[in-house]
Amino acid sequence: MTRPCSLFAATHERALRAALHRHLPAAAQAEPRLVAALAQGAAHPGKLLRGRLVLAAAHRHGLGARRASKIACAVEYFHTSSLLLDDLPCMDDAVVRRGQPCVHRRHGEATAILAALALINRAYALVGEALVTQPLRVRARAVAWLDRSLGLAGLVGGQAWDLAFARSTRSPALVSRIAAGKTGALFVLAVQLPATLARPSRAEQRALDALCIYWGQLYQIADDLSDVTACTAVSGKTSGRDRQLARPNLAVALGSARAQARLVRLSGQAERALTTLRARGGGRWDYLWELHAALVRLPAAHVEAQHHAA
Amino acid sequence: MTRPCSLFAATHERALRAALHRHLPAAAQAEPRLVAALAQGAAHPGKLLRGRLVLAAAHRHGLGARRASKIACAVEYFHTSSLLLDDLPCMDDAVVRRGQPCVHRRHGEATAILAALALINRAYALVGEALVTQPLRVRARAVAWLDRSLGLAGLVGGQAWDLAFARSTRSPALVSRIAAGKTGALFVLAVQLPATLARPSRAEQRALDALCIYWGQLYQIADDLSDVTACTAVSGKTSGRDRQLARPNLAVALGSARAQARLVRLSGQAERALTTLRARGGGRWDYLWELHAALVRLPAAHVEAQHHAA
Repeated sequence: MTRPCSLFAATHERALRAALHRHLPAAAQAEPRLVAALAQGAAHPGKLLRGRLVLAAAHRHGLGARRASKIACAVEYFHTSSLLLDDLPCMDDAVVRRGQPCVHRRHGEATAILAALALINRAYALVGEALVTQPLRVRARAVAWLDRSLGLAGLVGGQAWDLAFARSTRSPALVSRIAAGKTGALFVLAVQLPATLARPSRAEQRALDALCIYWGQLYQIADDLSDVTACTAVSGKTSGRDRQLARPNLAVALGSARAQARLVRLSGQAERALTTLRARGGGRWDYLWELHAALVRLPAAHVEAQHHAA
Repeated sequence: MTRPCSLFAATHERALRAALHRHLPAAAQAEPRLVAALAQGAAHPGKLLRGRLVLAAAHRHGLGARRASKIACAVEYFHTSSLLLDDLPCMDDAVVRRGQPCVHRRHGEATAILAALALINRAYALVGEALVTQPLRVRARAVAWLDRSLGLAGLVGGQAWDLAFARSTRSPALVSRIAAGKTGALFVLAVQLPATLARPSRAEQRALDALCIYWGQLYQIADDLSDVTACTAVSGKTSGRDRQLARPNLAVALGSARAQARLVRLSGQAERALTTLRARGGGRWDYLWELHAALVRLPAAHVEAQHHAA
């Protein structure tokens, strides 16, 4: 089903899915289990929200289709690698992911770890290749965004606090901080990495920064609500784990009603940032409105899917 | 004790050790266990062979001291991250590394994995920062070497075959292939990454490629001999694990005498490649002779250390 908006066009999805296979780590005489694990990731890529966003953004900001799809794949590979590792027994000990047995359940823990490493390495190579002819300033900012989004101030830092959560006071504030690090960081990367190509003004950059914070929290709350309310068959991953494992979950920490109210507030804040971007940048940031509309629909979609499955 | 040769100068070691701390992944409000795990890695950095080589090479090929030390740290961080992961229970299940309890034994498996990720991420950022002003061709080749050395054709691919080894025919040929992927790959990176700065001619590049293959195998055999002959207290890591775990070890596969003979042959082959480089490049590759001398001394040093400890 093709939606009328471009970000979710079926042609984009097909192009992205093909690129995810094409750019996979590969080598002559590669070890078969590792190859199978990597293929599983590419065959079940999830909603591709981040990849679609990067593809549309990079293209809008002047990158050719081939290079744009390289950065889109890179962000998806970073995302998949984080899921492979999050699902490990020593982390979330999950069983199901994207409707499939987790990679470590099917191919072993060591293979899941190596697949994650291979994806990370490939992702850096793809970004390097895609941006190699860009001006120094764009490349320097891209390096800084990768460092910040994926390192201790981002994805890895968020996951570390996530694991420490059970030993903590479990405050809603800490839950928000974890969400900002863990889920927010990859949204930041998906927005900011292609945005470097547009050389945003200071005002645009501030609005982009704010937008990323709101979106990251919005997405995490939607995900947390789905963990609390949806069943495993609908969400495509092991549900109800957060409460069970004393994991940070805002829908648990605040209650579903307050979490829903926070979603509405975050949505309003994000829209103000988007309005600023439209005022400052003309149409060049309009692809962000489309993603916003999709993010706001997410919790409703979860509830609806659960209703149909019941 | 300062050795007369520059590669092993105490000033280089001090500079490297300080840089390893300075460039560590960091963030405001970072999770304490993760910070402790990263600090442990920097406090016990091993022999720093790769870092010394990169530092000397990058400097020789015109990079300033600050940028040279960034690439040197990057290669050491890639190395440390691979050790953190190799030592995990699902991989080699090691207990001791660099004379310390392994990071996962002290801080938990999840923290060891996150520390490895943080180091990899930081390493890519450091390379990106160090090379950002280099010409397009140098940067493009650096991206390609990172991809090749760390991915399925290199470190990750070698580790995957290493884990599959116990299920295989355990042939000396497979052992050599694993060594080329696993240990060789980081030598390749330590030689080739700074060498891109020199824009080597085709003949120089061929000689560099050959040298890397010989050195990788030479170093792995030296390490395998030490696993067979040295005790844990001397080697600084859990010894005798290879035979116990049916792991690929050339000293086990060939016997110590034949492994020693192969060392001598590889040393001769490496010297021929070095001679070609001297003939083609004048003095600009001479730092490689110094590393060669150190590599050739390694097995003797192991035996000597064991003799003193006995």
